Amino acid sequence: MPTITPEDARTLARAALVAHGCDAANADAVADTIARAERDGAASHGLFRLPGYVASLKSGKVNGASRPKITNRAPAVLHVDGDGGYAPVAHQALAGPLAAAAKTEGLALAAVTNTHHFSALWAEVELLSERGVAAIACVSFKPALPPAGGTTPLYGTNPIAFAWPRPGRDPVVFDQASSVMARGEVMIAARDGHALPPGAGIGPDGQPSTDPAEVLRGALLPFGGYKGASLAMMVELLAGPLIGENLSLEAAETDPADGGPPRGGEFILTIDPDSARGSTDWAQHAEKLFEAIASQEGARLPGQGRAARRARIAEQGIDIAEDRLQELRALAEG
Amino acid sequence: MPTITPEDARTLARAALVAHGCDAANADAVADTIARAERDGAASHGLFRLPGYVASLKSGKVNGASRPKITNRAPAVLHVDGDGGYAPVAHQALAGPLAAAAKTEGLALAAVTNTHHFSALWAEVELLSERGVAAIACVSFKPALPPAGGTTPLYGTNPIAFAWPRPGRDPVVFDQASSVMARGEVMIAARDGHALPPGAGIGPDGQPSTDPAEVLRGALLPFGGYKGASLAMMVELLAGPLIGENLSLEAAETDPADGGPPRGGEFILTIDPDSARGSTDWAQHAEKLFEAIASQEGARLPGQGRAARRARIAEQGIDIAEDRLQELRALAEG
Repeated sequence: MPTITPEDARTLARAALVAHGCDAANADAVADTIARAERDGAASHGLFRLPGYVASLKSGKVNGASRPKITNRAPAVLHVDGDGGYAPVAHQALAGPLAAAAKTEGLALAAVTNTHHFSALWAEVELLSERGVAAIACVSFKPALPPAGGTTPLYGTNPIAFAWPRPGRDPVVFDQASSVMARGEVMIAARDGHALPPGAGIGPDGQPSTDPAEVLRGALLPFGGYKGASLAMMVELLAGPLIGENLSLEAAETDPADGGPPRGGEFILTIDPDSARGSTDWAQHAEKLFEAIASQEGARLPGQGRAARRARIAEQGIDIAEDRLQELRALAEG
Repeated sequence: MPTITPEDARTLARAALVAHGCDAANADAVADTIARAERDGAASHGLFRLPGYVASLKSGKVNGASRPKITNRAPAVLHVDGDGGYAPVAHQALAGPLAAAAKTEGLALAAVTNTHHFSALWAEVELLSERGVAAIACVSFKPALPPAGGTTPLYGTNPIAFAWPRPGRDPVVFDQASSVMARGEVMIAARDGHALPPGAGIGPDGQPSTDPAEVLRGALLPFGGYKGASLAMMVELLAGPLIGENLSLEAAETDPADGGPPRGGEFILTIDPDSARGSTDWAQHAEKLFEAIASQEGARLPGQGRAARRARIAEQGIDIAEDRLQELRALAEG
């Protein structure tokens, strides 16, 4: 099997996006997100999504020459209008102003609207934590999960991501769907012919199923039963009505189903720990918790698996099937 | 079996607290919280906790005459020093200033320190949502849950509560532990001799157990596996190092184990939807989601079960065993 590097992934992605109508700035932001996903072994958010990105440019749904606009809705609320472009373009624009607002006000919210989010959330919270603030982000998508007690998809898989800054070290980051499995993982299982673990989903008849194709036509299930459903509901409210963007059910109503991401919003909260605590010793204090985790046999910090995959990929590269590589090269040729 | 009303619960609780050293204002705040828990059928946070409250007054750990102090650490951060008292006293003091700060700044954080939290969190987020703001609150406690991959308790059961305001109607509220079961529920199962559901905990040997006594000596388990553990870790950071209060492991180190709540902090975030959205149509937009939930057979809104229990208790009262009632009356007599 051929191997490629994360840099190869970036080059391929950038070329495919430019060939289908992105300008350089927009292509760079998305290609960077794809390359970071591949670097971290998150195949379901890497080149796997490139055909969907290209489809959404071809259909004219996404603005490949977006210029996000940032205004204040309140002293601690920035409205980020994504200009119909991909979310990473908005993220690069908002990181500086949002972290600065958190430092002035103590905490700050980015109400991100009019974007198309098609990747993992850890990229944006990691970016913010590198500026010394803690960050919590969430997005909805299109209906995938039923509400507690129901069987019909209503909520998106609605991930929540969190990053805690560690001065001089990599931040502690998690990014987890409200479902047992992320939709991208189920799509990959369907492509590769693997069964899902029990409890991950139900078929169109509302009965439990381990067949990924059945589950994609039925519903994914929230993690932890009704508790995961509560979190998914909260995400719908925070990334939708609260900031003035689509609910998942509305995104589905208006999306052309071209294979790319629907229009949606994102809730990104940043907190300046110096302001929240009133001193700078939060960093040392948090290390006491991380040391207690590390001291338990078998225990791990969130993100530790990702860091290990990153190191392995830096050494060994990314395996990719020959026919998939050819498909991607064809996309890059336009 | 005798029955009492929520008002009887309030009277009993108030008398017991005053008899053991609370002043009127502190006793009123705590008795109100106990009465609200009993009114909503949440026995594990109602009179069940009264002996623990009294024990923590007897040991001198808690200040029954607390006067919380509120200062600004940043424009959008209020520091609430609970003066060593019970958390509900601080909640009553902070609700007005915190909601006002959210309306001015767009959102605001209460960094609550030096309090003793011994009840459910829905009371405080409900109180805030009645002022028209959305609220998210979390607290740690003493070690009960292992980190992902580990078997030794490190995190508290670390609940997260959320309230969404609905003008003219009851808010949508959830309040859920990061564990499969709340510690109070396990204590009640131990008292009543009931087995726990599989997956709720492990014994001191690290092996799965359904015996509540074994689990209280071993560890509760997070809901949804590592995902619940991630949330519990986030709560440790938000309610501890971020705001300048104890981690659960530190609370255990300094607590006299008198049966009452340890000293701890609370993270309470409020968001003004008018500011976050830049308009007032968030309320109507959210109803579209709630209607979609209600339209599914079997589906329910978070808090719906609690509302049903509240209605039943208003009609039928609260069953209480004769010997327990005698114990509580003895406490109230001092």
